[in-house]
Amino acid sequence: MATIIILTLITLASADYWTDRAHLIASDSSQNIGSSIVLSDKERQVNNILMGAKFKEYDQGFANPETFLPAQHFFKSKSKIEESGVFKFIQKVPKGASLHSHDSALVSLEYLYNLTYRENLYGCVVNQRLRLHFFDSASGDCEWELIQDLRKQNSSFDEYLRSQLSIIVDDPEKEYPSITQVWNRFMQTFSTVFGLVAYRPVFQDYFYQALKELYDDNVMYIEFRGLLPEVYELNGTTYDPEGVVGLYLETLEDFKSDYADFFGARFIYAPSRSVNNKTADDYVTTATKLKTLFPDFIAGFDLVGPEDRGKPLVQFIPQLLRLSKSMKFFFHAAETNWCGTTTDMNLFDAILLNTTRIGHGYGIVKHPKLLKEVKERHIALEVSPISNQVLKLVDDLRNHPGALLVAGGFPVVITCDDPTFWGAKGLSYDWYMAFMGFASRESDLRMLKQLAINSLKYSAMEEEEKCDAFNKWELMWNRFLDEVLKSSVSKYFDCYTVNRVR
Amino acid sequence: MATIIILTLITLASADYWTDRAHLIASDSSQNIGSSIVLSDKERQVNNILMGAKFKEYDQGFANPETFLPAQHFFKSKSKIEESGVFKFIQKVPKGASLHSHDSALVSLEYLYNLTYRENLYGCVVNQRLRLHFFDSASGDCEWELIQDLRKQNSSFDEYLRSQLSIIVDDPEKEYPSITQVWNRFMQTFSTVFGLVAYRPVFQDYFYQALKELYDDNVMYIEFRGLLPEVYELNGTTYDPEGVVGLYLETLEDFKSDYADFFGARFIYAPSRSVNNKTADDYVTTATKLKTLFPDFIAGFDLVGPEDRGKPLVQFIPQLLRLSKSMKFFFHAAETNWCGTTTDMNLFDAILLNTTRIGHGYGIVKHPKLLKEVKERHIALEVSPISNQVLKLVDDLRNHPGALLVAGGFPVVITCDDPTFWGAKGLSYDWYMAFMGFASRESDLRMLKQLAINSLKYSAMEEEEKCDAFNKWELMWNRFLDEVLKSSVSKYFDCYTVNRVR
Repeated sequence: MATIIILTLITLASADYWTDRAHLIASDSSQNIGSSIVLSDKERQVNNILMGAKFKEYDQGFANPETFLPAQHFFKSKSKIEESGVFKFIQKVPKGASLHSHDSALVSLEYLYNLTYRENLYGCVVNQRLRLHFFDSASGDCEWELIQDLRKQNSSFDEYLRSQLSIIVDDPEKEYPSITQVWNRFMQTFSTVFGLVAYRPVFQDYFYQALKELYDDNVMYIEFRGLLPEVYELNGTTYDPEGVVGLYLETLEDFKSDYADFFGARFIYAPSRSVNNKTADDYVTTATKLKTLFPDFIAGFDLVGPEDRGKPLVQFIPQLLRLSKSMKFFFHAAETNWCGTTTDMNLFDAILLNTTRIGHGYGIVKHPKLLKEVKERHIALEVSPISNQVLKLVDDLRNHPGALLVAGGFPVVITCDDPTFWGAKGLSYDWYMAFMGFASRESDLRMLKQLAINSLKYSAMEEEEKCDAFNKWELMWNRFLDEVLKSSVSKYFDCYTVNRVR
Repeated sequence: MATIIILTLITLASADYWTDRAHLIASDSSQNIGSSIVLSDKERQVNNILMGAKFKEYDQGFANPETFLPAQHFFKSKSKIEESGVFKFIQKVPKGASLHSHDSALVSLEYLYNLTYRENLYGCVVNQRLRLHFFDSASGDCEWELIQDLRKQNSSFDEYLRSQLSIIVDDPEKEYPSITQVWNRFMQTFSTVFGLVAYRPVFQDYFYQALKELYDDNVMYIEFRGLLPEVYELNGTTYDPEGVVGLYLETLEDFKSDYADFFGARFIYAPSRSVNNKTADDYVTTATKLKTLFPDFIAGFDLVGPEDRGKPLVQFIPQLLRLSKSMKFFFHAAETNWCGTTTDMNLFDAILLNTTRIGHGYGIVKHPKLLKEVKERHIALEVSPISNQVLKLVDDLRNHPGALLVAGGFPVVITCDDPTFWGAKGLSYDWYMAFMGFASRESDLRMLKQLAINSLKYSAMEEEEKCDAFNKWELMWNRFLDEVLKSSVSKYFDCYTVNRVR
C-alpha cells in the first residue's frame, strides 16, 4: 500500500513537472521575434516545408559541426549557402525593405567588375592601390592608362583588378589577422570603387542595377546611406550634392516606371565622421538644404567611416542638436567589440539624440539600460551579420549579439551593409545567417514574416505610405505562399519534408 | 537680441543634454556586477592602481587590436598574460571560492607531468593514445613498459608524453578545425591522466597539490566535481566510491592542518551522462548513500561528459526527481552554441529541477525567460571563459555571453573547469579574462570584489559557515589592500598610475 502511495506521488510530481516544463518553454519562446504571429492554415503548410529544410540542415550541423555554414567564414560558406534549401526558400520570401547599405557597395561584385569593360576607363596605381577614372583623354596627377590596354598588356591584370574591387581573399584568417588589416583593405576598396561609380552614366546604371538586384531578391523598398560624392561627366561637368540627389531621383523614377511594383527608395545623407567642427557645421547646412529641397527622398542623417578611428558623436553635439530640429537620425553606433570606449558610447548619444534607428549597435547587448530604451522607444537595430563577420567582430555567427536580440524580441531589422565587397547580393544571404545562425532551431516562418514586417515598420516612411507599403507587401506575401505550395507539390515537398521530431 | 535668445536656448538644450547623458550612463552601469559596492577610501586608492594598469593595457589593445589578449587563443596569450600588470594584481586578490573544476584536471600541467617521474609507472600505447598505470610488476591486457625505460630508449618520448597530458598544440586553429576534434582530444586526455592519478599515493599528493595551488592563488575554498573512479594500490587493493571520498577527506584534513587559513572543500558527485536508465538508478543509490555518509563534504550531484553527444537531463527526470529530495544539484547545462537543441534544453530541466548553480550555461543568454529566472531565484552561473574558448565555443572572449551576464548583474561566478589541460593554474587566468574580456573598460575593483563575494554567496555552504567564510575572507581582503598600497609606493605606483581620461 505504502509503495502504491509513493509511486502515485512520484507520478503526480512527474506530471506536474511536465506541465511546468511546457509552460516554461512556451513562456521563454513567447519573447522571440515573430512569436506573436499566428500562422494561417496556408502559412502552416508553407512553414512545414521551410522547417523540413531547416531541421535537415541544422541537425546535419549538430551532427557534423564543421559543416554548419553560419559558423564558417562567408568567403568559404557562400557557395555552399547557395545550395541550401533554406537559402533558396529565403530568396523567395518578400523581405520588405533594405534599410542599411552604402552608396559604393550596393550591387553584386560581378556587375561592378563588368563596369570595368566600359569605354574610356583609365587606371593608375598609387601606393599599390588601383585608382579608376573615366576620361575623354587622361591627364593630370597620375600616369593613367586605359584599362583595356592594361588588360591586353598583362594577362594577370584582370585578377589584380578584381582583387581591387572587393575584400575577398583565399585565406581571410591569415591575411586579416585583426580588424586593423581588414578595415584598411575595406577602406582602400572604397577608394578604388569611388572613381568607377562616380562617372555619371555609370552612376545611374549602377543605381538602377542596385534597385534591380534588390527587386530580384524580393525586396520592395530601400533606404540607403551615401556621401553624395562629386559625380562627373567626361566633358568636365560635375554634380554637387543637390545634383547627385537629382540623379538618384531620375534613376529611381526610371526604375519605377519599368518595375511598377517596386515601392521606392529613400536616402540617408551620411558623410564622414572623421572631420573637424567646421566641416560638421557645413554638414548641418548641406543636410538642412537637402531636406528642404527633397523632403520626401531625404530620410535623414548619419555619420560614417571607421567608428573606432573616427570622431564619436559626442564631439558634434551642438551641430547634431541643431540638425535634430529638421532631420531624423540613423546613426551608426557601437560597431565595435570595445565596451566602454568612445565608439561604444556612441550608443548613448545616438539614443539621446532620438535616433530613428541604430546602424549595427553591435555593442548594445552589454548595456542593459539601453536595451530597455530601444525596446520601449521602438528604435530599430540594423543588424548586418555578414558584415560583422567579415570585418572581424565575430567568427561564428551563433555568437553574434543578434542572437540575443532575436530571442528577446528586440526591434531588429536584418541588413546587408556593403554586400559588393564580400561577394553577397541583396538581403537573402544576411537573412539566411539570421535565420540559421542567430535563431533557435525552432524559430520558423513567423520569424521571417516578422523580419519583413519590421523592415517596413521601422522604415522612415510616413504612416500613410507605410500602410500602403504593408498592403502591397501582403499581396506579395500571399502570392509567395501560393507559389511555394504550388512548387512544393512537384519539387519542394519531396526533399524538404523530413521528420520534425528530435 | 534674437540671436542672444537663440544661443541661450541652444545652451540650455545643450545643458539638458549633458545632464540626461550623465543620468543615462549612470543608470546603465548601475546594473553591472559590483556596481552596488561603495568603495572605502583605502579601496579607492587600490582601485586607482588597478585602473591605471587596466586603462594602459585596454587602450593599448584599442590602438593595436592584435595585441589584446582576451581576443587571442589562450595557447598564444598565456605567456603574455603572465606579464600583465592586471594579471599580477588579480593573482593577489583574495578570490574566495573555486566552484567548477573536475577531479582529473585540478593541478598545473607541470605538476602533473612531474608525476610521471614516480616509480613503478608503466605506459602502453593503444590506438595511438598513451595509457598509464602503476604496477608492482606489469601484466595483463597491454604491452606495458616502464616509463623510465621508454624515456631512456627514445629521446623524443618525453615530448610525446607531455602531449598526452594536455590538449595544447602549436596551431589550434589548424589542428582543431571544429569542436569535434578538440573534444575528441580532450576526452582522450582524460583517459590518459586517469590511470596516473588513480594510484592512491599519487591521488592523495595530487589532491593536496590542487588545494595548494588554489591556496597560492589566494583561493580559500573549493567545490569540485568528480566521478569517484576506482583508486588502486600497488598490492591490488582498490577503493570504492565511499573509500575514495575517505581519501579526499583525509588529504583535506592534512592540508588544513598545514594551512590553517584554508577554509575547506566540498565534493559534487558527477558521473557520466552517457548512460542508460539502469545506471542512472544506480547513481541515485550511490549519491544518496554518499550524502548520508558524508553529509557535509558531499555538496550535491551533477552529470558530466560531452553534453552535445551524451544524454540530456530530460532522459532522467524520474531519477532526478527522486534524488532531489536528498541532494542539491549543480547541473552542467547548455555548454553549447546549438540553440534549441536537447543540449540547450538542459537549461530548462536544470532550472525546473531547482539546480543550485548551472555549470557553464553558455546558451542561456538566448533565453530571456530563463535569464529572469536565474536572477530572481539566485541560481548562479559558473562561467569558465578559457574553457569555452579552447573547447571552441568562442574565439574572441569579448563575444562570450559572460560579457552580458556581467553587464546585467546576473549571479555569475568565474570558474576554471579543467585548467591542467590548457596549461592554466588556479583561478587568476579566468578572472583576468572576465575582467579584461567580458567587462567594460570602466569596470573596476568593485567587479573583482563582487566576484569574490559571489563565489562564497553561491557556494553550497550552509548560512552559518558562509558567515564564517565571509569574515575570514574580509580579513584577507583588508590584508590584500594594505599589501597593494605598501608595495605600490615602491614598484606599483610608478608604472601603473597613468592618465584615466580618454
